[in-house]
Amino acid sequence: MVPHLVTALTGPINELEQRILDSMPAIERWFRLEWMEHTPTFYSAIDVRNAGYKLGPLDCDLFPDAWHALTPGMLPLAVQAAMAAIEKICPEARNLLIIPEHRLESSAYLMHLDRLRTIFHMAGLNVRFGSISPQVKKSVALQVPGAAGMSLEPVVRHRGRIGVKDFDPCTILLSNSLRSGIPGILEELHQQYLLPPVQAGWSVRRRSRHFGCLEEVCKRFGKLIGVDPWLAYPFTDACPKARLTTRAGVQELASHVEALLVKIRKKHKEYAISDRPSVVVKSDDADSRVPTWTLYDTKQLETQAAQYAAAMPEEAALFLHEGLTSVERVNDAVAQPVVYTMDRYVVGGFYRVQAAVAPSVLSTTNDDAFLPLAFADDAHLPLASLRSAAHAPNRFYMYGVIARLSMLAASYELEATDPQLEAA
Amino acid sequence: MVPHLVTALTGPINELEQRILDSMPAIERWFRLEWMEHTPTFYSAIDVRNAGYKLGPLDCDLFPDAWHALTPGMLPLAVQAAMAAIEKICPEARNLLIIPEHRLESSAYLMHLDRLRTIFHMAGLNVRFGSISPQVKKSVALQVPGAAGMSLEPVVRHRGRIGVKDFDPCTILLSNSLRSGIPGILEELHQQYLLPPVQAGWSVRRRSRHFGCLEEVCKRFGKLIGVDPWLAYPFTDACPKARLTTRAGVQELASHVEALLVKIRKKHKEYAISDRPSVVVKSDDADSRVPTWTLYDTKQLETQAAQYAAAMPEEAALFLHEGLTSVERVNDAVAQPVVYTMDRYVVGGFYRVQAAVAPSVLSTTNDDAFLPLAFADDAHLPLASLRSAAHAPNRFYMYGVIARLSMLAASYELEATDPQLEAA
Repeated sequence: MVPHLVTALTGPINELEQRILDSMPAIERWFRLEWMEHTPTFYSAIDVRNAGYKLGPLDCDLFPDAWHALTPGMLPLAVQAAMAAIEKICPEARNLLIIPEHRLESSAYLMHLDRLRTIFHMAGLNVRFGSISPQVKKSVALQVPGAAGMSLEPVVRHRGRIGVKDFDPCTILLSNSLRSGIPGILEELHQQYLLPPVQAGWSVRRRSRHFGCLEEVCKRFGKLIGVDPWLAYPFTDACPKARLTTRAGVQELASHVEALLVKIRKKHKEYAISDRPSVVVKSDDADSRVPTWTLYDTKQLETQAAQYAAAMPEEAALFLHEGLTSVERVNDAVAQPVVYTMDRYVVGGFYRVQAAVAPSVLSTTNDDAFLPLAFADDAHLPLASLRSAAHAPNRFYMYGVIARLSMLAASYELEATDPQLEAA
Repeated sequence: MVPHLVTALTGPINELEQRILDSMPAIERWFRLEWMEHTPTFYSAIDVRNAGYKLGPLDCDLFPDAWHALTPGMLPLAVQAAMAAIEKICPEARNLLIIPEHRLESSAYLMHLDRLRTIFHMAGLNVRFGSISPQVKKSVALQVPGAAGMSLEPVVRHRGRIGVKDFDPCTILLSNSLRSGIPGILEELHQQYLLPPVQAGWSVRRRSRHFGCLEEVCKRFGKLIGVDPWLAYPFTDACPKARLTTRAGVQELASHVEALLVKIRKKHKEYAISDRPSVVVKSDDADSRVPTWTLYDTKQLETQAAQYAAAMPEEAALFLHEGLTSVERVNDAVAQPVVYTMDRYVVGGFYRVQAAVAPSVLSTTNDDAFLPLAFADDAHLPLASLRSAAHAPNRFYMYGVIARLSMLAASYELEATDPQLEAA
């Protein structure tokens, strides 16, 4: 089940969406059976791009950091899902330690932390915040706009367990994507549950691995509902050791881009799609020093290669995916739905509204605004309206399905990189 | 977690409520551990009476029949809880058969069935309705006010399984309390899941057994949070073979009533409660021919015994409980919260507003009106208000806890009467 949220979609329901809506019981059963075999990601945020003729999840964030951007109405769903997750992981849990990012100057991030605290407190846990930053040597009071204050305490390690003063947690929730590697203090914590696991950090993750798993998931999904799986995922490729300062390096990337463009053009011809095929180049391990680059042909690549090479490190692992432009608009700005999950459940979402309508060639901005999605059925309307809302098609359902395909792929991905499974 | 609903409570938070609010993480953990050992009731509706100085669940309905009376905003919570339930019971489920009561002339009941259909459809199941009434020999079209029509098909049994034409369900949901016994067609269904199980029907259930389990549950709960368990349940007693047409029969009942009044008076003295102690007499097996009788002393019993005896069968199993008057008022009418659960989760509630303010001596009316409870935090308010709502005490929480004590007691009760466990 996916909550019925108001979407910006107003056009007619296309064939893919109709197929997804019609196959709802089969899809839900398929997910149920998948979760018998695989562990859902603890929480995640999935960017879904709707190009009209097809959809694709473009990012599966395993450290979602905008829980505060969901509407208040979604809080009970998130809490109930958190209860279900805790019950499976550690039913005897009393205490939860949240380890935030170091960027505590951001009031949006503090509001996010406050919302996480609310969710897990309402799920029945004592919640504290611990810092693994070496700079935090004593308790720091943080002011959250419009909320109760919170204190950030230094994390201490004792006999193979971590905690803060007088607080021994059973479960540790990472709100810290461990971009610069897994710190020693978090290693070998065999007595406590670390969520998500360390291999969910970007020092281990690779976009190419995620999208490889996604392709596998989508092929099975396509078979299930009888549609071309390409309608639900983007074509991808990777260049693990790209060096754009050399002629050979540029040519290697160009051959990858051209091969992807050929595959996309073939599909566009098959479906009579008039959109101009494009390939997006970005960092395979989400290295922020590597900008995002949208390419329409290899000639453009040749002319812009020097500019791109100057912006990125000498050598980098690059990831390539089929470009998808969003057909969704909120107040004339390009918008794309972001779907939030907790345990196996879709618990809410919002639109990421891009600051600039025109896609720039080299984009590193994160200046997107969030527009919360409300439930389609107003909680205060009389009963009669529920029925019409309940029987109107849930346009958010499709996004919830596409998001869960990506979340399932992330689950496969974390299994493939689990250090304990690897050692076994 | 209990959703934060608007309650009619406006007075100060008393000691018991404060204790419950303060002990939230301990309470939630205790319930989590209980559900590791015991199976939650599939769904239930619990009437909670708040007398101000104490609370008590007065009825735990295992066939809740007013799902349509919950606000639309609670639908996603119910659906998510249904998903969690299905996943545990029968993850490979495709089809669900709902078996309604025979009273299909009630449009409220049809709206309830429509809501059940919506919940389980959104949870990912194909839903059909089957009748076990011998009168239903072919498919009957039912018109539901403001909703899509539904058809009621005759249930057929084939090779130890039941279903309707071309529909083989994995799970059968009873919306039929089997008051007149377990029909043969539902017996020995070992290949399908019958929810709730047959012993949840009133041909097996006894109020005295439920309240016996409740007392046990409340004693452990009282120990957990350090309060007198009597503050959370009513004193009870039973008269298994009451015959009020005989002098001896009346005297026997009088002695039970007097013993209960003595226990209540002692507690009232201990807590300096000014309410007049009372005892409510009703049928132990919810026999509708036995009216409800409120008694303040044994003299009243003597004078009214003949009137009561004339209204009930010659011999009946009677159940007695401490009378609790509700302090809650909605528009000056006596109101009592009804809490709805699905699987282990509290998913919503409403107020049952009594038609008559003054409690009548012999009450058999079911003319109560339902007033849906809305979420305290409006889904459409800006973020700032969430924080204030999230940090305001959740007055509905206490009701959710009391309701779950009763639901846990029902779980113990169903285990005690499970025919398979009994046979083992």
